[in-house]
Amino acid sequence: MDWEQTTVTIESSAGRSILITDSIVKACLGLARIQVGFLHLFLRHTSASLTINENADSDVRRDLDMALHHIVPDRLDFRHTAEGKDDMPAHVKSSLMGVSLQIPINQGKLLLGTWQGIYLCEHRSLGHNREIVCTIYGRS
Amino acid sequence: MDWEQTTVTIESSAGRSILITDSIVKACLGLARIQVGFLHLFLRHTSASLTINENADSDVRRDLDMALHHIVPDRLDFRHTAEGKDDMPAHVKSSLMGVSLQIPINQGKLLLGTWQGIYLCEHRSLGHNREIVCTIYGRS
Amino acid sequence: MDWEQTTVTIESSAGRSILITDSIVKACLGLARIQVGFLHLFLRHTSASLTINENADSDVRRDLDMALHHIVPDRLDFRHTAEGKDDMPAHVKSSLMGVSLQIPINQGKLLLGTWQGIYLCEHRSLGHNREIVCTIYGRS
Repeated sequence: MDWEQTTVTIESSAGRSILITDSIVKACLGLARIQVGFLHLFLRHTSASLTINENADSDVRRDLDMALHHIVPDRLDFRHTAEGKDDMPAHVKSSLMGVSLQIPINQGKLLLGTWQGIYLCEHRSLGHNREIVCTIYGRS
Repeated sequence: MDWEQTTVTIESSAGRSILITDSIVKACLGLARIQVGFLHLFLRHTSASLTINENADSDVRRDLDMALHHIVPDRLDFRHTAEGKDDMPAHVKSSLMGVSLQIPINQGKLLLGTWQGIYLCEHRSLGHNREIVCTIYGRS
Repeated sequence: MDWEQTTVTIESSAGRSILITDSIVKACLGLARIQVGFLHLFLRHTSASLTINENADSDVRRDLDMALHHIVPDRLDFRHTAEGKDDMPAHVKSSLMGVSLQIPINQGKLLLGTWQGIYLCEHRSLGHNREIVCTIYGRS
């Protein structure tokens, strides 16, 4: 049983979703050794999220962000506004999308589908340095 | 430590959620051997999702699909429309619901609650063959 | 490889989200022994959810519940109404938010971010005893 845990810091993009598959794979040196197991990602923040979605057309990222803005409008009667008008909608989006992912590994490779990529979604209106704990575990 | 990984293909139902608990359990032959551990499911697609919800009344599935349609309306101003009007709403629903599940196992049985079942939710307006990577791991 | 599995019952608060980080940590006696691994939580219900969000200002919990009410309004044309008007919206919210969490452990401590706490979100309009399966696993 192999375990490898590392924390990656990625600069997010203001109010947008970006593809981070390559950055994550590059940071997880032990991935190639795992015969069967998992990559687990955990984002240590409450106003951003991790998700898996389409890895080819950047319009998908743009449309996802736009739809989230429709689903959680800024105009709701929020009380938690001390950190700005964009803060509480960001907290809601973070819980809807989630802050962790677990992807199976087989023969040293992530079993992502052809069209799947890992997104880091920044829900605040400014970019931030976001910490992601990457854990690889399995049978080597 | 036991590991078993298998890929199951299930035909989804156009724009609907279906119960797949029995199909998954049947495909995971090693489940009965695990004393304490997990079943992890990973859907290799970006316009469908996996979730856990009520396993008895089919109206719950129908109402869930209807509510998702309300939450992510087709009429939003999407740019990613090359694959049809239903494609981008399906991507959004997939990220809201998620594509993986992890269910604890004890004494060879899934620790699902009495009313919990595993759903495969098809967010496109046609059914598709959907691949699910099923991984069982734990102490046997 | 260490495994510890225990079920905790927590009384939820009618239609509200509460912080349960301390109750969970207290129930997981083996946590301190794990050098690298995970805490996995699984809620055995379909009208409540588990999520991670801001652990300081109670207005965040109040605003999250309010936003969920906006996102999944009671007035939708639900068919599954036998258990009350609040039941089907609760099922939808449960699937949007999710019923499981997996948090990395390092040196006997959860790697939650500074502002992250574990929420039990009750989506029914009455409180209930909610069962959470807590599994700790990793290298001790």
